[in-house]
Amino acid sequence: MNEAISGVRALTFDVFGTVVDWRGSVISAGSALKSPAARKVDWAKFADRWRMEGYRDAIARANREGPAWTRVDELHLRKLTELVRDFGLEDLSEAQIHDLNGVWHRLKPWPDSVEGLQRLKKRLIVSTLSNGDVALLTNMAKHSGLPWDCVLSAELVGHYKPTPVVYRKAAEWLGLEPSQVMMVAAHTGDLAAARKEGLRTALVKRPLEYGDVARADLTGEAWMDVVADDMNDLANKLGC
Amino acid sequence: MNEAISGVRALTFDVFGTVVDWRGSVISAGSALKSPAARKVDWAKFADRWRMEGYRDAIARANREGPAWTRVDELHLRKLTELVRDFGLEDLSEAQIHDLNGVWHRLKPWPDSVEGLQRLKKRLIVSTLSNGDVALLTNMAKHSGLPWDCVLSAELVGHYKPTPVVYRKAAEWLGLEPSQVMMVAAHTGDLAAARKEGLRTALVKRPLEYGDVARADLTGEAWMDVVADDMNDLANKLGC
Repeated sequence: MNEAISGVRALTFDVFGTVVDWRGSVISAGSALKSPAARKVDWAKFADRWRMEGYRDAIARANREGPAWTRVDELHLRKLTELVRDFGLEDLSEAQIHDLNGVWHRLKPWPDSVEGLQRLKKRLIVSTLSNGDVALLTNMAKHSGLPWDCVLSAELVGHYKPTPVVYRKAAEWLGLEPSQVMMVAAHTGDLAAARKEGLRTALVKRPLEYGDVARADLTGEAWMDVVADDMNDLANKLGC
Repeated sequence: MNEAISGVRALTFDVFGTVVDWRGSVISAGSALKSPAARKVDWAKFADRWRMEGYRDAIARANREGPAWTRVDELHLRKLTELVRDFGLEDLSEAQIHDLNGVWHRLKPWPDSVEGLQRLKKRLIVSTLSNGDVALLTNMAKHSGLPWDCVLSAELVGHYKPTPVVYRKAAEWLGLEPSQVMMVAAHTGDLAAARKEGLRTALVKRPLEYGDVARADLTGEAWMDVVADDMNDLANKLGC
């Protein structure tokens, strides 16, 4: 472990894709729906559209156009309403739709996430730093046994990542200098934004996030402090 | 358990005095100082002045005079600098003073707190809702094994309790109606303020908080939803 890393006191984690498998979880939840129409749906396509159009595009638009904050829960629901129509799922009840939207509160961790976090937590503060809202992150942690010391969210700032102030406020709330905080994410863009604000960075490779390895960020960059194969490898590399 | 209580999904806890014993912890830390002058100090008096003047009075002034937010860590340090002089502790080094101020990050839980919280956490979301800052609450939880699902602080709002918005924002961040959230505190004033914003309330009796039972809030009021002898009793009364 080099000197730069030894000064790190806290890790802030991206959650969707980095800690939990949103795509696999949405596919499972959709496939388990009790509805004749649901059995005909390509749930992988459904999951991808929900994530890309309902979340990624909406966040990008908000970051481009202005500071209005909308809960990710609400963004998910808006797109779900549209997808229910597009995929011919009109036989779903209101209760089923509400429950399906709640899948984002119950995303399954990648197999190494809980063990890796427990190891990291012994020596370092482990916090979320997600665009997901506090309630979603708290419910997910409870559901999946993610042992956060602290639940920080872009919601508390009122701006989504990768807006710079989100990373700065996280360090401030943790009572640390930015260089004492390491952002952990499967996404180069998130890490690049954190680095600009002075945080350390760790890429955790998640080849299966999008179901297509070509779309995942699997190549470390020279400026990253750590490049890890999974959370246990991150724990190894941070000496935990 | 009556109907009103059965709708509760999350508990928000006052921390200083309710979950941890600030007075006993400060007395221990002071008594353990390696300094000839420190051995002559009445650490109970020191603790009481630090808490009453450095924290309580400063918070009351800020709530009366305006919205400027100062970290509780900084409030503690200001008063400590004064107390070091008043109690003739000039032989303390800068490092010792810094470390003594950090005692608020290492406060000892009351003997029933960790077990009670673990029981409550099985069925309910357990969160802090303290004037202590996020870093202080996070460090304290890590040091003392307090198993919070979520660390909420007045710092995130920029106003101290009992300012109404602090309670409203806590419910909002938890994604709940105020009536689904129960404030837990050893202090009637904190509970009264939470109740005005629609939260449920539970008094936990802490007769030894101030070292003088006459100063503790030990008498439940008719409007409180629960009055408990300690955290385990609270778990019993909430069916956990």
